Amino acid sequence: MFPVHVPDDRDVVLCECFARDGLQHESAFVATEEKAGLVDRFAAIGFTRVEATSYSNPKLVPQFADASELLAQLPRRAGAWYKATCANLRAVERAVADLERGVGANEISFLASASESHSQRNLKRSREEQWDNIRQMRERAGDFFRIVGTVSVAFGCPFEGRVDPRQVLHDVQAFARLGIGLVALGDTTGMATPRDVRALVRLLEAEVPEVTLVAHFHDSRGTGLVNCMAAYEAGVRYFDAAFGGVGGHPAAIAYGGGYTGNVCTEDLVNLFAAQGIRTGIDLAALLNVAQRCEKALQRQLLGHVTRTGLSPLVAATLSS
Amino acid sequence: MFPVHVPDDRDVVLCECFARDGLQHESAFVATEEKAGLVDRFAAIGFTRVEATSYSNPKLVPQFADASELLAQLPRRAGAWYKATCANLRAVERAVADLERGVGANEISFLASASESHSQRNLKRSREEQWDNIRQMRERAGDFFRIVGTVSVAFGCPFEGRVDPRQVLHDVQAFARLGIGLVALGDTTGMATPRDVRALVRLLEAEVPEVTLVAHFHDSRGTGLVNCMAAYEAGVRYFDAAFGGVGGHPAAIAYGGGYTGNVCTEDLVNLFAAQGIRTGIDLAALLNVAQRCEKALQRQLLGHVTRTGLSPLVAATLSS
Repeated sequence: MFPVHVPDDRDVVLCECFARDGLQHESAFVATEEKAGLVDRFAAIGFTRVEATSYSNPKLVPQFADASELLAQLPRRAGAWYKATCANLRAVERAVADLERGVGANEISFLASASESHSQRNLKRSREEQWDNIRQMRERAGDFFRIVGTVSVAFGCPFEGRVDPRQVLHDVQAFARLGIGLVALGDTTGMATPRDVRALVRLLEAEVPEVTLVAHFHDSRGTGLVNCMAAYEAGVRYFDAAFGGVGGHPAAIAYGGGYTGNVCTEDLVNLFAAQGIRTGIDLAALLNVAQRCEKALQRQLLGHVTRTGLSPLVAATLSS
Repeated sequence: MFPVHVPDDRDVVLCECFARDGLQHESAFVATEEKAGLVDRFAAIGFTRVEATSYSNPKLVPQFADASELLAQLPRRAGAWYKATCANLRAVERAVADLERGVGANEISFLASASESHSQRNLKRSREEQWDNIRQMRERAGDFFRIVGTVSVAFGCPFEGRVDPRQVLHDVQAFARLGIGLVALGDTTGMATPRDVRALVRLLEAEVPEVTLVAHFHDSRGTGLVNCMAAYEAGVRYFDAAFGGVGGHPAAIAYGGGYTGNVCTEDLVNLFAAQGIRTGIDLAALLNVAQRCEKALQRQLLGHVTRTGLSPLVAATLSS
């Protein structure tokens, strides 16, 4: 297994998801050079984990038709994990082929759904079938990559409502049995609350202590930051976020419509920094990168501090 | 002193601030009938405290030139506190005159600034001068009204940075000595963090236990909900919020620019409700009222659940 540890220079590890979860449903194709430039810049300002692309079917997700090309353009950086999501065995085969050419991602992720209905609709497989799929992918991936498991709709399902925490526990244990020690809990449609986050994290830390949890919240109902803080206070140290709070499934009414995006990176970094929680991110560069993300999408995104500025208490630490 | 207690049907008491803190800096005048209709509707759906207007100088704040007329249009409701803010002795005299005519607010609020610079710039008086002012207002108000004290920049000042919690303690104690048992802690420019909220609430609850604290946060940096939850967990049960997250000081660069609004009511109510925390607000009517507020301002406001919908877990409790 690949190491999972929080580097000495920080208290939390953020994964910047703009280039994949953020762009997945953007209708306009962002040029490969631009995406590669952004991913590289994210790593340069301190993100040790960056979600770079997805080995998707180009017909289904044209935005990632350039997955191999983008990864080939990325300069390697010591300590940086570039993640590519893999939906099926074919995706893992592409990831292995790229890695063998020396240009690939060094982290890949597999997705399970905690509810049967969401698995059927989002993954087109039953939960049981998806776990067969994951076991095959795991075998094919061997020890080439660090692997991240993701459990989506871990805090509630838009189709079924409440999700039994024991189903999430089942999935986290299943990842652990496959030697996957890093597992993201996905609040896919923004149904989590601090109460639920505390309860689920406590359950999982008691039952599967060998797994390092990643908090992956969506800000559909404005609860991104409050759930991140609840996760932090419950002991979680890995967080997913996207500049400008982009991402999610904008079209699908079934997913709630309205806001769908990830937790906003710049707002989360500001919140952590204002409390003395070290993110390892270059605070002086943060808003400049947020603006670059807005330029890439040619519109104003959802970050609050991008407009308001860092907290004066954070800004004061920069000039001192 | 007037009673301060959480009614039996709820765990928290929300004050709806749309009509005053929300509208204070809106350039377009909202018709008196429309404002009165909104304030009445807020009370009708369960807000026992509603910030209705301000006895301001009409030349400085044209939006509230109709303060007396608006209050006169409000039907009285048992258990409803209609608040008017008072900046000076003249304002209190107007409030008393209206009350004597039987049409006035039954709650008024006085404002102190926890930092010297903010007091000078926002109130045009030193802290000491403002406390002389408050003592005169307090004397003139007599026992006609429930009085709320507000300490602005309680969690940080845009001009001075960190604010010593002992200055906030000083102000809360000064309100208490005047028999003012309800005191709001204002995060005027969105500098508070959960860490600061917990620390300040603990200090005040230890030193001034006779005072009931009100959490008044602004969402300038996206931290409204996370600070409300921190305040709740520290024991605070009174919260200020505004539909659509409107309000604050949009023009003043000195105040940070960018986002300035209050905590968004509909997002806060959804967050509380999803955790089983009873707000007493009619959840079935919530989004309809949020939309009515958008119509009043003729633009899309900042509420997330207004677009995304209540959490399915909350919605399920309505249809059952």
